[in-house]
Amino acid sequence: MSLLVVGSVAFDAIETPFGKTDKIIGGAATYISLACSFFTKQVNLVSVVGEDFPTSDISFLQSKGVDTAGLQIKKGEKSFFWSGKYHNDMNSRDTLVTELNVLEKFDPIIPEKYQDCKFLMLGNLAPSVQRQVIERLVKRPKIIVMDTMNFWMEIAMDDLIKTISMVDVLTINDEEARLLSKEYSLKKAAKKILKMGPKVLIIKKGEHGALLFNENEAFFAPALPLEEVFDPTGAGDTFAGGFIGYLAKTEDISFENMKRAIIHGSALASFCVEKFGIERLSTLTSHELEDRIQDFIDLVQFEMSI
Amino acid sequence: MSLLVVGSVAFDAIETPFGKTDKIIGGAATYISLACSFFTKQVNLVSVVGEDFPTSDISFLQSKGVDTAGLQIKKGEKSFFWSGKYHNDMNSRDTLVTELNVLEKFDPIIPEKYQDCKFLMLGNLAPSVQRQVIERLVKRPKIIVMDTMNFWMEIAMDDLIKTISMVDVLTINDEEARLLSKEYSLKKAAKKILKMGPKVLIIKKGEHGALLFNENEAFFAPALPLEEVFDPTGAGDTFAGGFIGYLAKTEDISFENMKRAIIHGSALASFCVEKFGIERLSTLTSHELEDRIQDFIDLVQFEMSI
Repeated sequence: MSLLVVGSVAFDAIETPFGKTDKIIGGAATYISLACSFFTKQVNLVSVVGEDFPTSDISFLQSKGVDTAGLQIKKGEKSFFWSGKYHNDMNSRDTLVTELNVLEKFDPIIPEKYQDCKFLMLGNLAPSVQRQVIERLVKRPKIIVMDTMNFWMEIAMDDLIKTISMVDVLTINDEEARLLSKEYSLKKAAKKILKMGPKVLIIKKGEHGALLFNENEAFFAPALPLEEVFDPTGAGDTFAGGFIGYLAKTEDISFENMKRAIIHGSALASFCVEKFGIERLSTLTSHELEDRIQDFIDLVQFEMSI
Repeated sequence: MSLLVVGSVAFDAIETPFGKTDKIIGGAATYISLACSFFTKQVNLVSVVGEDFPTSDISFLQSKGVDTAGLQIKKGEKSFFWSGKYHNDMNSRDTLVTELNVLEKFDPIIPEKYQDCKFLMLGNLAPSVQRQVIERLVKRPKIIVMDTMNFWMEIAMDDLIKTISMVDVLTINDEEARLLSKEYSLKKAAKKILKMGPKVLIIKKGEHGALLFNENEAFFAPALPLEEVFDPTGAGDTFAGGFIGYLAKTEDISFENMKRAIIHGSALASFCVEKFGIERLSTLTSHELEDRIQDFIDLVQFEMSI
């Protein structure tokens, strides 16, 4: 079941209380693709980088089974660059630099061979670009999952709502759910957002886990209590990538299977934050991942007859 | 299995975005006792009120099976009074008035017939008073659960640490766990706090659920996503009361049973916040409670073989 990932591939420079990095590989689609690669080797990538992007990093993605035929390399241009500094609580951060560069005029060209995709993951991008991707697919994928950010709610709400109406699953964090719905209660927020089009809403709550809603059901997935959060960058993208990767692997988009997919996404995200950038995901083994998933199961498991 | 509850019985005046109350019955021991009464009819109360406290409220507690022989009524004195105003997010509040009154010189006298207690719940009080209760019990209870607050960490840390070292289970919120341990990571905080004496730590995270730790295991209990939080006052006490009440009912203090006890406490707390003060708990039926517990089970239930 081929899976299409669209989003940024970029440079990040990150500062946390534990240290700082120079420009390292980042971007939503990088984390998503890598996360997907743990579940399926049919990951197709549509993105754009500049001439400054190291071929070694592209080769690395390829080595993980990511097809980069859809990764445009713009001669004479520079890759998207983001730099941020996390506060001591690791839950908030300041953006120090945002250079859109190649992303400013990103035209998401979909290679012909990607047209058969059954699973589409739209990483955080301008909602108009995300919509373009959907419109350019001749056949609608079996499932479209979309991530977005408060940024677009502030500057492109109409566009965002239009795109949201076209997807099956929306993933946002609790603050964004409140902003989008104008409701403080997440249950009320979910009701409102599900009326905007998506059949399923995932609310990411970071260290507090994640909530999964459809019209009639809700599921609460825990976050593993971690000794150390070294760098939260990419955790949300890794979570989303693990989620859709697991759906693609199992070819099952039922609510019950989405619960399992969320646990897989959460487990991957819990590794992501252990080191800077994609470092920990790069060396992660499937055995380590299975152990971590068992930790999640143990964390929430109880038996009760009432 | 007799259960002893020690804590404040008081007047509260509460203001939330949904309205405000005059002086209504409140206090940690009120909520705890009421919560316990859903599981056992052997709830003994040690507390103190002034002459101003309505006998009808005392009769009400008695009607729920709470023994009030240990409730001192101080002639010519006034009951503890707290008044607070919740902010729009319902997660933070300003204290408007705190009148200690009878609580200032509270001498927790334990009636002889309470001496056989197997389960002791120390509601939030000065840690020196909590310790007095333990010292006045001739035979150590099977389990001592203690609740406390950041307030005591700020003004009586040494006393607090001394009392914590004597209990089996400590319940605090996430902010307090960080304050007490000087660790931001709740996993690290739990490790440190468990070295202070308690065998089990419960970290309450309000709308984000609760964490249960012992030396080797962890359990993450969800909070039910609610449409409306009307008044959070007493939710933590109700949670603690449900927890120890369930342990007393089942006479099982294993970690596995504590998981179930936390689900029961969480379910009770989810009712508590639906109306002002003890209003919702007063009319709650065991059938409604069972249904709510089933909601909790449904919320976290998933099947996975890895």
